[in-house]
Amino acid sequence: MAIVLAAGQGKRMKSKLYKVLHPVAGKPMVGHVIDTLKAVDAERTVVVVGYGAEAVKGYLGEQAEYALQAEQLGTGHAVLQAKEAIGAEEGTTIVICGDTPLISEGTLRSTMELHKQSGAAATILTAKLDDPHGYGRIIRGADGRVARIVEQKDCKPEEAAVQEINTGTYCFDNRLLFEALASVKNDNAQQEYYLTDVIGILTGLGQLVQGYCMKDSSESIGVNDRVALAEAERYMRERINREHMLNGVTIIDATNTYIEADVKIGADTVILPGTILRGTTVIGEDCTIGPQSEIINSTISDSVAVKQSVLDSAIVDSEASVGPFAYLRPGAKIGKHVKIGDFVEIKNATLGEGSKVSHLSYVGDAIVGTNVNIGCGAITVNYDGFNKSLTEIGDDAFVGSNVNLIAPVKIGKGAYVVAGSTITHEVEEGDLAIARQRQSNKPGYADKIKARMKAKKSGQ
Amino acid sequence: MAIVLAAGQGKRMKSKLYKVLHPVAGKPMVGHVIDTLKAVDAERTVVVVGYGAEAVKGYLGEQAEYALQAEQLGTGHAVLQAKEAIGAEEGTTIVICGDTPLISEGTLRSTMELHKQSGAAATILTAKLDDPHGYGRIIRGADGRVARIVEQKDCKPEEAAVQEINTGTYCFDNRLLFEALASVKNDNAQQEYYLTDVIGILTGLGQLVQGYCMKDSSESIGVNDRVALAEAERYMRERINREHMLNGVTIIDATNTYIEADVKIGADTVILPGTILRGTTVIGEDCTIGPQSEIINSTISDSVAVKQSVLDSAIVDSEASVGPFAYLRPGAKIGKHVKIGDFVEIKNATLGEGSKVSHLSYVGDAIVGTNVNIGCGAITVNYDGFNKSLTEIGDDAFVGSNVNLIAPVKIGKGAYVVAGSTITHEVEEGDLAIARQRQSNKPGYADKIKARMKAKKSGQ
Amino acid sequence: MAIVLAAGQGKRMKSKLYKVLHPVAGKPMVGHVIDTLKAVDAERTVVVVGYGAEAVKGYLGEQAEYALQAEQLGTGHAVLQAKEAIGAEEGTTIVICGDTPLISEGTLRSTMELHKQSGAAATILTAKLDDPHGYGRIIRGADGRVARIVEQKDCKPEEAAVQEINTGTYCFDNRLLFEALASVKNDNAQQEYYLTDVIGILTGLGQLVQGYCMKDSSESIGVNDRVALAEAERYMRERINREHMLNGVTIIDATNTYIEADVKIGADTVILPGTILRGTTVIGEDCTIGPQSEIINSTISDSVAVKQSVLDSAIVDSEASVGPFAYLRPGAKIGKHVKIGDFVEIKNATLGEGSKVSHLSYVGDAIVGTNVNIGCGAITVNYDGFNKSLTEIGDDAFVGSNVNLIAPVKIGKGAYVVAGSTITHEVEEGDLAIARQRQSNKPGYADKIKARMKAKKSGQ
Repeated sequence: MAIVLAAGQGKRMKSKLYKVLHPVAGKPMVGHVIDTLKAVDAERTVVVVGYGAEAVKGYLGEQAEYALQAEQLGTGHAVLQAKEAIGAEEGTTIVICGDTPLISEGTLRSTMELHKQSGAAATILTAKLDDPHGYGRIIRGADGRVARIVEQKDCKPEEAAVQEINTGTYCFDNRLLFEALASVKNDNAQQEYYLTDVIGILTGLGQLVQGYCMKDSSESIGVNDRVALAEAERYMRERINREHMLNGVTIIDATNTYIEADVKIGADTVILPGTILRGTTVIGEDCTIGPQSEIINSTISDSVAVKQSVLDSAIVDSEASVGPFAYLRPGAKIGKHVKIGDFVEIKNATLGEGSKVSHLSYVGDAIVGTNVNIGCGAITVNYDGFNKSLTEIGDDAFVGSNVNLIAPVKIGKGAYVVAGSTITHEVEEGDLAIARQRQSNKPGYADKIKARMKAKKSGQ
Repeated sequence: MAIVLAAGQGKRMKSKLYKVLHPVAGKPMVGHVIDTLKAVDAERTVVVVGYGAEAVKGYLGEQAEYALQAEQLGTGHAVLQAKEAIGAEEGTTIVICGDTPLISEGTLRSTMELHKQSGAAATILTAKLDDPHGYGRIIRGADGRVARIVEQKDCKPEEAAVQEINTGTYCFDNRLLFEALASVKNDNAQQEYYLTDVIGILTGLGQLVQGYCMKDSSESIGVNDRVALAEAERYMRERINREHMLNGVTIIDATNTYIEADVKIGADTVILPGTILRGTTVIGEDCTIGPQSEIINSTISDSVAVKQSVLDSAIVDSEASVGPFAYLRPGAKIGKHVKIGDFVEIKNATLGEGSKVSHLSYVGDAIVGTNVNIGCGAITVNYDGFNKSLTEIGDDAFVGSNVNLIAPVKIGKGAYVVAGSTITHEVEEGDLAIARQRQSNKPGYADKIKARMKAKKSGQ
Repeated sequence: MAIVLAAGQGKRMKSKLYKVLHPVAGKPMVGHVIDTLKAVDAERTVVVVGYGAEAVKGYLGEQAEYALQAEQLGTGHAVLQAKEAIGAEEGTTIVICGDTPLISEGTLRSTMELHKQSGAAATILTAKLDDPHGYGRIIRGADGRVARIVEQKDCKPEEAAVQEINTGTYCFDNRLLFEALASVKNDNAQQEYYLTDVIGILTGLGQLVQGYCMKDSSESIGVNDRVALAEAERYMRERINREHMLNGVTIIDATNTYIEADVKIGADTVILPGTILRGTTVIGEDCTIGPQSEIINSTISDSVAVKQSVLDSAIVDSEASVGPFAYLRPGAKIGKHVKIGDFVEIKNATLGEGSKVSHLSYVGDAIVGTNVNIGCGAITVNYDGFNKSLTEIGDDAFVGSNVNLIAPVKIGKGAYVVAGSTITHEVEEGDLAIARQRQSNKPGYADKIKARMKAKKSGQ
């Protein structure tokens, strides 16, 4: 079982968005916590909600049960709200804060293991900090057990010197937790019920309290303002990037590469600086991605090059190249060996193997065959102000530069549309289409027109 | 009063630009120093100029008075040049270097406060460094007063171990400063007059000398080469970004976000990596800015999205979206809910509420009404080689793809210009305009033309 | 002489690419090592190859001699493979690993100098690490000589506390090296022949072994996985950028600027963040480069501005400006004072002094004179599906917006091509060319067409 404390307001975030919903590496903080709890097989999870309760429930949905803390009367009071849901259960309960997104599966597992193996009533997840000032210190007895937690303001000098602190994450024997909570009082300056008092009550009863000290203290970060949010983002980024690197991905600058938690990348792919990979993006092997590319919810096969481009919900097949400065929008399906060049937008369009859209084009709402050449500046005119219509282009067709294809329209296999034409009717297989005026030269007229323009200018 | 030492050459900068004029976070170093002096209400400021005197005066203008140090004979000599201007005044004088842009208002205020409250003759702004090697050490007496400053080369071992150093910024009693300066000699290896000798003279006279140690030693950085310039830039960036984060702005990666000192940003706006915000830019609440966007002297309202774009002196109203890959140039005024898409340039043009310029367009020197659709590749032809002319497009008009609007020209309300047309004359309200040749298909001709081209190719 | 150990597989790289061929700052690791050996005038260099032998030989070519280590039986065994090539030589032999790209010329020179001056049999290049765990410790005698190397597993507590470690780079007396190697045994757990055993053998023979401790321990990094590769990349980047800054280049953010080893940059040039400079790129003085620009093998003269652009094998003359969002491809030759604006591609084309291609254009396979204006959206149609042809445009010509120039074609000096024309034939000097249909307005027809489209929409 697990209880996630997610009821606080987060005033110092200065945000309309509820604190635990602020994303870290693209996922709300409380989402990271829930994912970690799933990973350690917490059977039931109760999220204690308060401020923004509906928003948190809306985000997490059926991943958790909920308990409402209507008034914010302290962490002990918050945990108590879960009593109705799980107070009667036997077993271990993890208590964790919704604003500590970095606590890892491994750390939580180790804490649980120590807890179970030692038969402790409570096990505190602790961290050693260079500067522990402000945190509750973990005071251990000679036997290594936790004797007590001392808050900063109550620290004697030798206690203040202790670097091991309470991170606010615990394993509890569920029954003992709720028994002890019943005895917690709010006779303190803030008139709050503190969860840490449970530790004192348990040791007072002679119960065993353990402390598991995390290996990497950066996991202990709790996010209370946007400076801490950025710090959490940085640690999460390092963790994700490190994992990819160990798996055989080259990341030229891991501090300047932004990969969300669920992205997958194949070995020997190189990620260049300034690149952002988001959502459900999957990238194959031997790709070159970036620099300065943003790829969202897209699927990219092996040996693809994406340079200085933005891809959103696109599919790119192997050996294709995209960019620099291309924009693939939802529904773009780029075939094998296709070249999408510079200043090209593709939207809701399939491009067959070997086709080329080299520069300054827009292909939208289209089905394009194999080995088609779309000339520079050619456009599928898919929108008339009211309707979006389809353009179909057959294999081996050639569409000249600055051509307009007024959809709905079909260009047959092997057809040839000459540059500068606006095409309104079907061009059948093997036909050539032209729709442009003949050139007319007016000898010596350039000077005349320039003189006229100059006159106009000086007349202004 | 304040004296800013800004006469040195800055050889190690290896620059044609005078040292104190090198910008940090977009503002010349001496500009930061002058701004800080204004913030602490220094009534008169004398900038001692030497190398590049005219350039410094040209930049600072009437923000300061100037004294010329014609020869570079040391810091004491430099301060002495301010005697004519303020030697006769009573009160406190701050002496500060023009190449220490990071010294903050708060630090300077604290130094001044200690100075005044203690009635000191001089108060040295000091810093504690992990590695103090090379700096003058602050030797304090048992009473905490500064006994003397010892230069590196004169340090005994116990003095070399002192980590508190002289940052080169001071508060002086003005009268005592100039009296002491008269006694400073140049009988040293460099034959220079050192300002630090004033401290020895004052303590010799039994005057009180205090030291105020800054809380964040990074403020003490003096810039002598471009490595230090980059370091100053980094600290200034951190300071600015931290302030925005504490105010409720989410900055995904504060090390990779470049915000100049005077930029304003509303709460709950998210700044993505690689973004540069410059000059007088003001951004509203709930915006998404970046990644990799550069915004200069622009005003952006609430709930605007700007992606991978460059904005220079543009105005963007609320709920509008810009980019990816858009370029808004001076005079661009983007209305509410307007969509500026990819590969679009807007220059000196107003776009009314709800209008769309989705892709591959240029709108320059234009007044565009509300709910206008500018098709893909459509262009306002505002320049004939001599004159720039105006295009006016009425509300609800539809301009088709790859249309040329040859300015000056008007498109009436609700008018419809079909794709591929070049428009040279006014289109009145409700009219449709067309200017393109009919399509002609030549059956089987694609093969013929391809054969001819192929032959040409093999003939090459 | 030098022996480069480059036979290991590099399993933890998880790569199809052989380990020492992984690039750091654009150059394979073993390439950095070879360059450093050249810089210290190593006369003969033997690269011991094993895994990927052919690929390494293919990359290094005649820069080195090669010895094959068919089986991976340890570092001692690897060095022994060079015996045939250089075993009979007299003099000093450097032994260095192919995966230590950061060891600098200066460090190697200092090691060699100590080796020669002291007449040592061997000189070990050492480093002092904050955390030496896992490395072989250098145990020195009272006289400063190296007494022995102790591996981690054999360390007594006082040895484990030693922070000086063996970096795996050595100078040896060549004759003594191969004599000692003959005595090295593989009676250890891994059954490997260790090069470090040579040190023990030499000291056992009463030979002098020295240790030279590098000043900057980051040089000691050996790359075994991609995390270390990224770390090596970061240190190399810092080193390169620092050098440019000391030479008078302003780099706004040196952690976010990627400059390969052979790039040259003039003083007072400013490099903005996210910029990547590669290959043989040379940049003049007083340029502004970036942000987010990638420049490959290009030559840029003084006072050029390049913004948000990609340049590959381009030449840009002084005072020109490029971007934002421009793409210069191989063969682009941009003249003085030329303006290449946004969404412009230039390929294999020369633009004469003062010409302008301001937006949304493609100029490929072209020779453009001076002071030519290429209008917005104008395109050189250089490809017919089979042939690439040339466009020639004379001085002072004006090419209107959205014009297609169907190559091969010539536009004469001072000629004027009106907007929207498709030009298929030569336009002679001073002539005006037009190729577009006249405009026809259909009164009230906009409403009719819209009604038709609306009907179609609701019919869907």
